Amino acid sequence: MDFELSEDTQQMQRTLRQFMQRELLPRLGDYERLVHRGEYPSAVIEPLKARARAAGLWNLFLPGLREDEPGTRLSNLAYAPLAEIMGRVPWASEVFNCNAPDTGNMELLHLFATAAQRERWLVPLLDGRIRSCFSMTEPDVASADATNIATTIRREGGHYVINGRKWFTTGAAHPQCRLAVVMGVTDESSLAPRHGRHSMVLVPLDTPGVRVVRNVPVMNHLAPDGHCEITYTDVRVPVANLLGRENEGFALAQARLGPGRVHHCMRAIGQCELAIELMAERALTRRAFGRHLADFANVQDWIAHSRVEVDQARLLVLQAAWKMDRFGNKAAHVDVSAIKLVAAQLHVRVLDRAMQVFGAMGLTPDTPLAELWSTGRAMRFFDGPDEVHLRAVAKAELARSRETLGSTAVYYRNPQDRD
Amino acid sequence: MDFELSEDTQQMQRTLRQFMQRELLPRLGDYERLVHRGEYPSAVIEPLKARARAAGLWNLFLPGLREDEPGTRLSNLAYAPLAEIMGRVPWASEVFNCNAPDTGNMELLHLFATAAQRERWLVPLLDGRIRSCFSMTEPDVASADATNIATTIRREGGHYVINGRKWFTTGAAHPQCRLAVVMGVTDESSLAPRHGRHSMVLVPLDTPGVRVVRNVPVMNHLAPDGHCEITYTDVRVPVANLLGRENEGFALAQARLGPGRVHHCMRAIGQCELAIELMAERALTRRAFGRHLADFANVQDWIAHSRVEVDQARLLVLQAAWKMDRFGNKAAHVDVSAIKLVAAQLHVRVLDRAMQVFGAMGLTPDTPLAELWSTGRAMRFFDGPDEVHLRAVAKAELARSRETLGSTAVYYRNPQDRD
Amino acid sequence: MDFELSEDTQQMQRTLRQFMQRELLPRLGDYERLVHRGEYPSAVIEPLKARARAAGLWNLFLPGLREDEPGTRLSNLAYAPLAEIMGRVPWASEVFNCNAPDTGNMELLHLFATAAQRERWLVPLLDGRIRSCFSMTEPDVASADATNIATTIRREGGHYVINGRKWFTTGAAHPQCRLAVVMGVTDESSLAPRHGRHSMVLVPLDTPGVRVVRNVPVMNHLAPDGHCEITYTDVRVPVANLLGRENEGFALAQARLGPGRVHHCMRAIGQCELAIELMAERALTRRAFGRHLADFANVQDWIAHSRVEVDQARLLVLQAAWKMDRFGNKAAHVDVSAIKLVAAQLHVRVLDRAMQVFGAMGLTPDTPLAELWSTGRAMRFFDGPDEVHLRAVAKAELARSRETLGSTAVYYRNPQDRD
Amino acid sequence: MDFELSEDTQQMQRTLRQFMQRELLPRLGDYERLVHRGEYPSAVIEPLKARARAAGLWNLFLPGLREDEPGTRLSNLAYAPLAEIMGRVPWASEVFNCNAPDTGNMELLHLFATAAQRERWLVPLLDGRIRSCFSMTEPDVASADATNIATTIRREGGHYVINGRKWFTTGAAHPQCRLAVVMGVTDESSLAPRHGRHSMVLVPLDTPGVRVVRNVPVMNHLAPDGHCEITYTDVRVPVANLLGRENEGFALAQARLGPGRVHHCMRAIGQCELAIELMAERALTRRAFGRHLADFANVQDWIAHSRVEVDQARLLVLQAAWKMDRFGNKAAHVDVSAIKLVAAQLHVRVLDRAMQVFGAMGLTPDTPLAELWSTGRAMRFFDGPDEVHLRAVAKAELARSRETLGSTAVYYRNPQDRD
Repeated sequence: MDFELSEDTQQMQRTLRQFMQRELLPRLGDYERLVHRGEYPSAVIEPLKARARAAGLWNLFLPGLREDEPGTRLSNLAYAPLAEIMGRVPWASEVFNCNAPDTGNMELLHLFATAAQRERWLVPLLDGRIRSCFSMTEPDVASADATNIATTIRREGGHYVINGRKWFTTGAAHPQCRLAVVMGVTDESSLAPRHGRHSMVLVPLDTPGVRVVRNVPVMNHLAPDGHCEITYTDVRVPVANLLGRENEGFALAQARLGPGRVHHCMRAIGQCELAIELMAERALTRRAFGRHLADFANVQDWIAHSRVEVDQARLLVLQAAWKMDRFGNKAAHVDVSAIKLVAAQLHVRVLDRAMQVFGAMGLTPDTPLAELWSTGRAMRFFDGPDEVHLRAVAKAELARSRETLGSTAVYYRNPQDRD
Repeated sequence: MDFELSEDTQQMQRTLRQFMQRELLPRLGDYERLVHRGEYPSAVIEPLKARARAAGLWNLFLPGLREDEPGTRLSNLAYAPLAEIMGRVPWASEVFNCNAPDTGNMELLHLFATAAQRERWLVPLLDGRIRSCFSMTEPDVASADATNIATTIRREGGHYVINGRKWFTTGAAHPQCRLAVVMGVTDESSLAPRHGRHSMVLVPLDTPGVRVVRNVPVMNHLAPDGHCEITYTDVRVPVANLLGRENEGFALAQARLGPGRVHHCMRAIGQCELAIELMAERALTRRAFGRHLADFANVQDWIAHSRVEVDQARLLVLQAAWKMDRFGNKAAHVDVSAIKLVAAQLHVRVLDRAMQVFGAMGLTPDTPLAELWSTGRAMRFFDGPDEVHLRAVAKAELARSRETLGSTAVYYRNPQDRD
Repeated sequence: MDFELSEDTQQMQRTLRQFMQRELLPRLGDYERLVHRGEYPSAVIEPLKARARAAGLWNLFLPGLREDEPGTRLSNLAYAPLAEIMGRVPWASEVFNCNAPDTGNMELLHLFATAAQRERWLVPLLDGRIRSCFSMTEPDVASADATNIATTIRREGGHYVINGRKWFTTGAAHPQCRLAVVMGVTDESSLAPRHGRHSMVLVPLDTPGVRVVRNVPVMNHLAPDGHCEITYTDVRVPVANLLGRENEGFALAQARLGPGRVHHCMRAIGQCELAIELMAERALTRRAFGRHLADFANVQDWIAHSRVEVDQARLLVLQAAWKMDRFGNKAAHVDVSAIKLVAAQLHVRVLDRAMQVFGAMGLTPDTPLAELWSTGRAMRFFDGPDEVHLRAVAKAELARSRETLGSTAVYYRNPQDRD
Repeated sequence: MDFELSEDTQQMQRTLRQFMQRELLPRLGDYERLVHRGEYPSAVIEPLKARARAAGLWNLFLPGLREDEPGTRLSNLAYAPLAEIMGRVPWASEVFNCNAPDTGNMELLHLFATAAQRERWLVPLLDGRIRSCFSMTEPDVASADATNIATTIRREGGHYVINGRKWFTTGAAHPQCRLAVVMGVTDESSLAPRHGRHSMVLVPLDTPGVRVVRNVPVMNHLAPDGHCEITYTDVRVPVANLLGRENEGFALAQARLGPGRVHHCMRAIGQCELAIELMAERALTRRAFGRHLADFANVQDWIAHSRVEVDQARLLVLQAAWKMDRFGNKAAHVDVSAIKLVAAQLHVRVLDRAMQVFGAMGLTPDTPLAELWSTGRAMRFFDGPDEVHLRAVAKAELARSRETLGSTAVYYRNPQDRD
């Protein structure tokens, strides 16, 4: 057991931190201004992308195990601390071509796409020339139970015909978004097992019948690249657009989620670190009732609890990343539920404390806290609500217990021993 | 970074688990019976000690870096997982000569004792022939702020004369307890710095003037070896009984605390694991309202939260142990505060959930939960209350912030960018 | 709406407070001494009972609506504030013949007993000459779901034959306990509705086959009057000992619970008030790090949260009492679940905070906190665990919602209004 | 003590509920549409105001004790349940001329204004012809400690000259807003007591030097009437515009706050009730994992906790209203801190649970939850952050304790009683 990051990772952290400091942070104001005007801030992001790529900070997320594979050959454990740094600015990941949901989609394509699919979609995605979205959640059913998903993907001759309504399709409002990965029911017979009825198809966003209805505000906040509501009405794509095999959509979804959740969690942790920094500085400089806020025991408690909670969560996430590297994504299935749960609940808790230290200012857009908080609250739903992950962790624990049932009996005490 | 325990540690875990299973757990009833009759259960413990020693499970806690030093040469990181296993039975550590406060006292003597002191006290302690206690906390002052300690140790010729009242002196009720390490004020002048006025002296328990007033019940529970109240009235010991240097008592106390807190925390985590096992089995076997408790979402939530909280806490404790091994106890000072805080609060939370799953039975002595819970609640005070550790963690965070004051300014947003 | 207690109630409060102050509190030490010696402290209690009765502070709990009925004619709303005052000392209620479970049993007998039953049991209970217990909870089933109760009460000729194991039968260790009200299955056919199979029978405690197995410690604490485990083995009582009608045991249990829960809750609130007083005094007098604890913002927060939580809970309990007086016990069914839930959770929370302010002393028997805390923790199970009450409150809310299903639709927003 | 609302109040509730149902709720969509277009929705509100006034639902908040005084003669206790109903729609209060901050300003003017001031400002406010704002909080100081307020109001001949920056001046973006009540320092000498240096002046919003800099979004949400940042630069008003007496601004502020906080709290409670209704309906109609959400124990727990917390909070608020009616605003000072604290924390807790039951939809503007939550989070700062109220409640408790210091000693136990 060793808690030290490798020398390579530490070097990469320094490079990335420097890039953030010198290149990215100075553009925060410009970004803000463009977004406020209602433009997608490509004028800020595109030049930064070029500089990041030149600096070797590109596609860091993609493990790429074989020589001929794309990506920077970073393991999940090596990439995770970098995601933490990127997370400090919600839009930074795109600059490094490491943003959700493109990362997950690239991974899906990398793992399951045909040569033609790779050529058409994966290559430009890896190049950062196009963006993509992932259309899974539906407004009309509880998507927490993913088997509820009701969008139909019916085979008609050489085509699939898609009908359904999706929302929280992140990224669909990005001006360069060209591809939607759509999850739907391909086998509607009630005989198939509930996790063996769905498939994923690749849908060019300009296919007739695809309509981006609206960019849905999340906790009053409108993401520039959108959490979109999309209707698919008689959308026809060639059967060659099937990703992986028919009715194996859930297996693909599972494969996609592991690393993406590690990224999400580490970005969340990066935001918690920023919140702690902001809260500590504020506490040191603001006075009330004759003392600095930092001298009040309740403010100290918020800072301390945040520190120990963040440090614990980070270790749990890194351990999950390590487990994925070592034993494969599937072996880390429950760990990934655990970190998703932990990070999302941690994020709102820490951000909330930081806002409280800032007083009314914490609610305004003058600090990043209110917007980060929105993301955090939404994170408690993205990739499954807390309840789904609690359920998964509990079921794993109960399964373990079932295997050794009776083993705790020796710890019970016989009242007669006390007679 | 590597999350796998070393092969040696894993082997040691197997050996220890086997010993617990085969030798110790079968004696739980006998232990209970003796305690209930009011006897110290030496008849159970002494034979187990002999067997444990024979099995090489002895003084595992003592790092012992040099050839000629006692101990099993285990690092803190290597010992910690073993403490977790021992913790599952509150009295198990003594069987392995690894129980508090003797471990801390042995470490103190190992580090600071003169040759004569070592010969007289350390050797029999390492052999498990005698027990010792540590007399620090006082009823009349808030010992959370240790500089409040008021017991006086006055030099009179070749002796120190001790006067004061202590309590929560753990172990003083053990029939073999022979030594009290006593902390008191040696420099009462108000000119000395607050942390430079206290010393530690070695006081044989049979010295005239030492009176064990009572064994104080903790949350209604009476520890067999006692959390004792002791009065020291004109107790005279030779100046040769000074441990370390005069007025450096706090430096010694600090040195003593680090590893001991790791042990405490890991034992607490072992108890949390046991609580999860008990709670899961109970949930799987008990029915209400037509379902097993395990099928109720709130019970699942308690199990899941316990699992992710315990896993996080363990990583934090192991990291602190690793840090102590790598950079020394002093460097891990704040980490040790953090784990003490985290483990104590975790313990009561997990135990409380487990009790709730057991219904009324959880409150009875028929399961180990109620007694473990008592320990946990007390752990929120032993080695300093939560508030002291929160304060320490916050102050460290604020100190870091103070050093880089202004560094978060770049994250603030200029309202004019949104005009 | 009027938040002022009636002049009569206020007068009664003054009388009771004075009695507590002058008569009862000075005996706390004597009581303690006797209990510590293992005696039931009748030598303290009996003289106090005589004085209380003489002062008109007797059977205050019993509404007694008719001229010829026993009791002091206090409504639930009038009695509740008195129960709060009594609650400050855990054993005080017995002095006023107002202690559980006798109060509930007296009420049961008052409502459902035959003339002969009243003569034999109710009269001496109202006189305080005998004590009684209520045998419902069983160790072998989840009694939270009361329909699980498995003790059998089989009719054989002119007798009922009782077989089963009960525990948490409070009061059975009292030296004057003469009567157990036993709940069991009289109709074992699976055809009867689950709430229509049980009955209550009156069992003299000296009936052959009744064995008080042990007084079960609760959170390490042993109640002098006992939370007993009792086995009933072929216990025969005449059919005339049936209370109320056969198979209507649940209806009786419900009738019994309402007022008793109000009493429990108010006593718990009285203990919370005492905890706040203790915590505030301690905070004002204890110093750490150069300030009084009262000057630390976290301690202030604990006190303030306790204050506002206690004040809210009291209002809720008084409202439930008022509702029972006004609309009958049945109409207040859900309110009674609500207050039981609220008061039990509040109690452990407030007591826990108070213990924390006291430091290690809070865990010892030197203050009443640790023992009160034990009661509070157990209260989360007595009369049903929190989960049963949460379930009851939720089901009532959901039932209301079901009746007006669709009524919230008008509050939803049509996304098109924002297009 | 009586928990029943008076017949008059119940009648008023019915009338108001009917108005909401028939007149106001049908306009929610129109309101939304106008706001979304960036217009202040006067086209919806003005006609509703006329109808409300015609229905006698006008200025309900103003106690008006004398014949010749304005207002509907409702006591605080009588008005509170009406505020709860209005609160269900955030903008409803304006329809009844009962919205903050105008209510508080009208009360201030009613109590302290000169005849000329009343004529110019109070009369049109009572008529609903103009709106007003209250300029107290400042971005540059911790306004939680109101004595920090730094805006200067300097006397120069017959004028006051105002300089300073304010924000969270609610209502200043309303198209009919004409008046700002401005709080600032009139006595800058450090000799005056800290609460005796500030005054309030009436500033017409069109006075040169007044600049509404921006409408500050709160948790990403932009209130149509604004939480505005305003700069006052050499703003000159005649000395006749002083409200009340010089340097008595804090006394005025206190007088203003009591009833306004009751209104705020009851509106918050109304929103909690709506949240419970929404959450219950959703739980009854949404399915996951083969069951309705209403059948999951954790969802039931959220509903039940919300119900019992809301019921308790309402009683506390009504009690505070009753106390103000009975003993005056000053006597209820601490109660008003308590309810503000309780209601604000309750609101975010209940809204958060409701959002969680709604899944991702809870974050969108398709239900009122996300917007209501924003208000709730902000409410934890409006009229003082939680910490200020916790401090006030704690200080009151500690003051009480100080008066009877030593009174708890009788409850301590002498260890010797257990020897």
